[in-house]
Amino acid sequence: MTNLGIGLIGYAFMGAAHSQAWRSAPRFFDLPLHPELNVLCGRNADAVQAAATKLGWNGTETDWRKLLGRDDVQLIDVCTPGDSHAEIAIAALEAGKHVLCEKPLANTVAEAEAMTAAAEKASAQGIRSMVGFTYRRVPAIALARKLVAEGKIGTVRHVRAQYLQDWISDPEAPLSWRLDKEKAGSGALGDIGAHIVDLTQFITGDRIAEVSGQLETFVKERPKAAEHSGLSGTASTERGPVTVDDAAVFITKFKSGALGVFEATRFATGRKNAIRIEINGSAGSLAFDFEDMNLLHFYDATEDPETAGFRRILATEPVHPYVAAWWPPGHLLGYEHGFTHQVVDLVTAIADGRDPEPSFADGLQIQRVLAAVEDSSNSRQWQEIPE
Amino acid sequence: MTNLGIGLIGYAFMGAAHSQAWRSAPRFFDLPLHPELNVLCGRNADAVQAAATKLGWNGTETDWRKLLGRDDVQLIDVCTPGDSHAEIAIAALEAGKHVLCEKPLANTVAEAEAMTAAAEKASAQGIRSMVGFTYRRVPAIALARKLVAEGKIGTVRHVRAQYLQDWISDPEAPLSWRLDKEKAGSGALGDIGAHIVDLTQFITGDRIAEVSGQLETFVKERPKAAEHSGLSGTASTERGPVTVDDAAVFITKFKSGALGVFEATRFATGRKNAIRIEINGSAGSLAFDFEDMNLLHFYDATEDPETAGFRRILATEPVHPYVAAWWPPGHLLGYEHGFTHQVVDLVTAIADGRDPEPSFADGLQIQRVLAAVEDSSNSRQWQEIPE
Amino acid sequence: MTNLGIGLIGYAFMGAAHSQAWRSAPRFFDLPLHPELNVLCGRNADAVQAAATKLGWNGTETDWRKLLGRDDVQLIDVCTPGDSHAEIAIAALEAGKHVLCEKPLANTVAEAEAMTAAAEKASAQGIRSMVGFTYRRVPAIALARKLVAEGKIGTVRHVRAQYLQDWISDPEAPLSWRLDKEKAGSGALGDIGAHIVDLTQFITGDRIAEVSGQLETFVKERPKAAEHSGLSGTASTERGPVTVDDAAVFITKFKSGALGVFEATRFATGRKNAIRIEINGSAGSLAFDFEDMNLLHFYDATEDPETAGFRRILATEPVHPYVAAWWPPGHLLGYEHGFTHQVVDLVTAIADGRDPEPSFADGLQIQRVLAAVEDSSNSRQWQEIPE
Amino acid sequence: MTNLGIGLIGYAFMGAAHSQAWRSAPRFFDLPLHPELNVLCGRNADAVQAAATKLGWNGTETDWRKLLGRDDVQLIDVCTPGDSHAEIAIAALEAGKHVLCEKPLANTVAEAEAMTAAAEKASAQGIRSMVGFTYRRVPAIALARKLVAEGKIGTVRHVRAQYLQDWISDPEAPLSWRLDKEKAGSGALGDIGAHIVDLTQFITGDRIAEVSGQLETFVKERPKAAEHSGLSGTASTERGPVTVDDAAVFITKFKSGALGVFEATRFATGRKNAIRIEINGSAGSLAFDFEDMNLLHFYDATEDPETAGFRRILATEPVHPYVAAWWPPGHLLGYEHGFTHQVVDLVTAIADGRDPEPSFADGLQIQRVLAAVEDSSNSRQWQEIPE
Repeated sequence: MTNLGIGLIGYAFMGAAHSQAWRSAPRFFDLPLHPELNVLCGRNADAVQAAATKLGWNGTETDWRKLLGRDDVQLIDVCTPGDSHAEIAIAALEAGKHVLCEKPLANTVAEAEAMTAAAEKASAQGIRSMVGFTYRRVPAIALARKLVAEGKIGTVRHVRAQYLQDWISDPEAPLSWRLDKEKAGSGALGDIGAHIVDLTQFITGDRIAEVSGQLETFVKERPKAAEHSGLSGTASTERGPVTVDDAAVFITKFKSGALGVFEATRFATGRKNAIRIEINGSAGSLAFDFEDMNLLHFYDATEDPETAGFRRILATEPVHPYVAAWWPPGHLLGYEHGFTHQVVDLVTAIADGRDPEPSFADGLQIQRVLAAVEDSSNSRQWQEIPE
Repeated sequence: MTNLGIGLIGYAFMGAAHSQAWRSAPRFFDLPLHPELNVLCGRNADAVQAAATKLGWNGTETDWRKLLGRDDVQLIDVCTPGDSHAEIAIAALEAGKHVLCEKPLANTVAEAEAMTAAAEKASAQGIRSMVGFTYRRVPAIALARKLVAEGKIGTVRHVRAQYLQDWISDPEAPLSWRLDKEKAGSGALGDIGAHIVDLTQFITGDRIAEVSGQLETFVKERPKAAEHSGLSGTASTERGPVTVDDAAVFITKFKSGALGVFEATRFATGRKNAIRIEINGSAGSLAFDFEDMNLLHFYDATEDPETAGFRRILATEPVHPYVAAWWPPGHLLGYEHGFTHQVVDLVTAIADGRDPEPSFADGLQIQRVLAAVEDSSNSRQWQEIPE
Repeated sequence: MTNLGIGLIGYAFMGAAHSQAWRSAPRFFDLPLHPELNVLCGRNADAVQAAATKLGWNGTETDWRKLLGRDDVQLIDVCTPGDSHAEIAIAALEAGKHVLCEKPLANTVAEAEAMTAAAEKASAQGIRSMVGFTYRRVPAIALARKLVAEGKIGTVRHVRAQYLQDWISDPEAPLSWRLDKEKAGSGALGDIGAHIVDLTQFITGDRIAEVSGQLETFVKERPKAAEHSGLSGTASTERGPVTVDDAAVFITKFKSGALGVFEATRFATGRKNAIRIEINGSAGSLAFDFEDMNLLHFYDATEDPETAGFRRILATEPVHPYVAAWWPPGHLLGYEHGFTHQVVDLVTAIADGRDPEPSFADGLQIQRVLAAVEDSSNSRQWQEIPE
Repeated sequence: MTNLGIGLIGYAFMGAAHSQAWRSAPRFFDLPLHPELNVLCGRNADAVQAAATKLGWNGTETDWRKLLGRDDVQLIDVCTPGDSHAEIAIAALEAGKHVLCEKPLANTVAEAEAMTAAAEKASAQGIRSMVGFTYRRVPAIALARKLVAEGKIGTVRHVRAQYLQDWISDPEAPLSWRLDKEKAGSGALGDIGAHIVDLTQFITGDRIAEVSGQLETFVKERPKAAEHSGLSGTASTERGPVTVDDAAVFITKFKSGALGVFEATRFATGRKNAIRIEINGSAGSLAFDFEDMNLLHFYDATEDPETAGFRRILATEPVHPYVAAWWPPGHLLGYEHGFTHQVVDLVTAIADGRDPEPSFADGLQIQRVLAAVEDSSNSRQWQEIPE
């Protein structure tokens, strides 16, 4: 079997999740290409070497430009903060490497446009690119999309989506790169709001047409972190400004006329990673909560009212997306499995000579929705999403 | 419309619940006879008068034998502790009064047999009797029975039932009549275990054939209650023995061959009135928990596995048993509504000249199951339920 | 005990619920005044007589103005559609009658202002008025308010509230007065959105300062109903326009700076009466769903993270608001109990010589929020709520 | 770091799960020894070679006796059906290899006794052995044990445990080795009942003293499977007898006096892998369901009743057992993670020179409980568990 040499840039939270995915995918799925964990890349030589040993990579680089020059690397996996996505991804595509880029695609619409242009150019040469909206690959979510596409809930009328965390609800939680607009682009909006924009558009097969939103930063100043890696870091006594939003709420109209209600926050005390999506259609409804990620709730409005009710589908049956490769029914999957499925879909598309989804163009469209939410929060008016 | 004069004996917890039922039934249902709340009966003249005023009764008696002689009373509703059920019910039937008797039917099998004989004799004269297993009339439960009877879950293989309370898990909770074998007959077994024996037999349409059980009294001595009315009473400094079981567990075989697992306890800390029933059949399953009493969960094993799952049926639709008389869908019913439905079914049967269900014979059979559990706990062997 | 003669106008859904409340309140609570169900009022003499018999009223009137002149009536309970609230309530107050008026207070802000002025004038004469936001009296909701007031969740940052029904998601569901702007004022917004505006303000003790919203009418034309009573009616072959919103979504800022997300719809397929409220504060969170109305979920963020978690509080303990009057723990209350508690609070305030809550002024403020949502939907901009 | 060469026998369901654990453990945890996946062993040379490539093993053997002679193997991981556990494990221990043996330890008490004797002898030489009750390592379960040990629920009074599956509720599901007494020893009792015996004893720190049980085989004859690997296999037209139990129910007394109720079945239609455990103590309760395996529900009876309630603990915090090595809070773990934790605990014990838990002696005690259930089902009497 042909090898596919992987070069991964970044080795914090996302780097660890992607590493597990590259390692595990061929152990459970029959992949058409064999991923080789060839190079892990990071700026600190000692740290990246330690991470490579731990995470199972064959070698390291400290300069991502050198990584792009290596013959044993055919795919670049970008797990850095958003401010470097555009530069790295464009250079990688120009160097003829396939690219998997973590979400959000970029920190600005302009960067995302440049990346999309590069991706389309590369695609003509058979070079593939994909943005890492990994939650699409949770089996229950993939099943939801399938049911909507099959018409099981009819015409979609309502979308409600929340991404709720609470990891900075404590005002003494230190600044991290995720609270720095330069690094992260935005706060809850881009980090977690991006996911529910993607997921609801993915499940419904529809797109958001216009938005009215409000961003809020509840805690304006925080202790500076001693180091800026990982989710939070250690606090110092100095304080610095929070330059991103703590929370974002927005209402939307979809192209189809459906109404949407969205909320992304890191201040929902007691909610740790609650991605809640409910879709109401003319013939039925779907509901999902990531805190019970193996479940999809489905209401079929065409049933006899005597026994109609939301069905608690435990999406662990062999007939459910991705599941046949894993364990018997009722043996749950976890957070990391979505990343493994992402690898499977990406590698399969590369082998098939197809552009995988979500494309950089998809990532750009999401970026435009996020930008429109910000604009709307400033203008206090509805904003249309440009095509 | 013909009146049906009611005489109610007892005015504690059950007396209040029955009073609300007698008052409310004609306000929501079209009854063929009009219940008149004519006489409330209790030994203490002042207390019964106060209760009658509060609960809406037209008059009082302090001697139940006098009550049986009154012309304005056609139905005796027995809400006393179990030790007086037999005497009162038999006398009432002999006096030509219809009888509604609270569960458990009696404190002993012998008493229950005498009551059943009296009921059968009275029935020949058009005098009706019924035992008050009120939970049968929760709409979700009545729906469960209907679905089983229609074959929706196929052949029943498993019955699991728990009745969990915690009101005496504190060893300092005082003695009440419910902890006194003379008054109550048994403890958790007869008070709450009786309900799950009735409910599972009602839902499945099957009967328990044999049992192996274990009774336990965790707290052997408690403060004496200053007064013996109500659920608990006030503690005094003196202590007395608990003469009934705190908890009962038993496994069963049903006549059909189904296996049953039962548990009744007042020591399930944090569970307040959790009546949990799950039935697994060859073609589907049903699950119920009284702490969410408006819900019935139904799994249809004949469905496409892609979308099969337990359906959360909110049993508040007009098509569900008893519901059309109440509120629109999603507007929940509560504990007391079962008593109202009991009145509806009883009054309708009387007007129709039919024996209502559950009959005293049904109550006797449950008593035999309870007695077999006690016998088994003593003999450490399985016990058959005599026909 | 002094009697309080009640005159109730309207005998459909709300009339039945209020009747049950007036009948039941004195049976469970010690009221300082004794409500007498003296007069039921409706335009059709036969129908109102039949309803009075069924619902337990002593007499009837067909003209509400005559009702206001009766000496045996001290309180007018207004259960008519919204277009007659202002005229009736103002006249009743001027006639020296206490008034309980169903929500929403009126169909327009102008009407609500006139009613509020009348209420304030009457109050100076000892005449009381109240608007019927009955869900405040669900024990779990009253408990939520208490916990927020005690600081148990700290500073409120997020309010999310949904009122989800599906009773007109079928395009063939007939027109009823609730779909007629003349009668109902608005659709989902005023009928059910009003409740979540009231409940969130009640629980948080805060007020909405500004809104951005969107109304939508998914089904623009429907079969005319043969009769216009009740929730739906029977369909005819003629069609008529739906003149109210089918759904309303809006985001808000509260005066405190908290963000709110609201959604009211009758098109949430499978959701029958789901009033879902979640409040996230700096020290904890609360969550409620009316489809499990006896539960309140509470997260205390100050607890040891090892055992912190949302607590499922079964609000059926004697220490919980209103509960001590009812049944033992775990014996659930239902929809109608909120109305009974409303009667208790109203009658107690009258006897105490206090203005009950929510006042007409409170109802007016809610009306202003609803009007601002409509204005915002038209202007496509945020709208402030006038003081 | 010192290597620990692993030889794994068996490569079906359990072999795949163990392989993933051996691969993943060093990637997330800091292990004191480095596991090397040196040899996969199975009887069919081609099949075992294919499995080794897929699952990531360096080499293969077709004869487990040869495996025991290899110098590059220090630990034998036994994932074969129960009928070969004793022979292989004893020989491995005698060959000086550490042994991890899948549960149940053996098919008979006699075998388990021999294995335990061998394990104790080996332990004296520093050779370690462990039986694979992997569910102990689910973080929520490990947390439950910790809370009980700390006295958080006081004295345990009730244990209720169910292990519910439905994979053979269809009478046409083919015979597999799991339905053959020769291979599997028993049916639901040993396969899944063993888990809940272990888990409840593990969590409570208590042991079952006596049992009364009932085994049942609902479907006595099934199509023969074309091949006998995996969970089910493919059906042929011939039929053969089911020689094990389809379901087992039993009640128990624990040494402490606590009552237990157990149920293990593969006929609970709609329940896929529902391991439900609830423990009620004098000061609180715990509840767990594997279908929501990241949750532990905890009731603290010492709390203010106003806000007491079962807490939904999402056991994904860094303070929870095993969790710090994985993902941020709210990012769920799955079925396979328990196996990884098992590897961590085993390798750590080996490096520390300690006997890991659960030991073969623990496995023997569970075997004795299972045997007592069978005996009781035959004798129709309670059976004590010998020490």
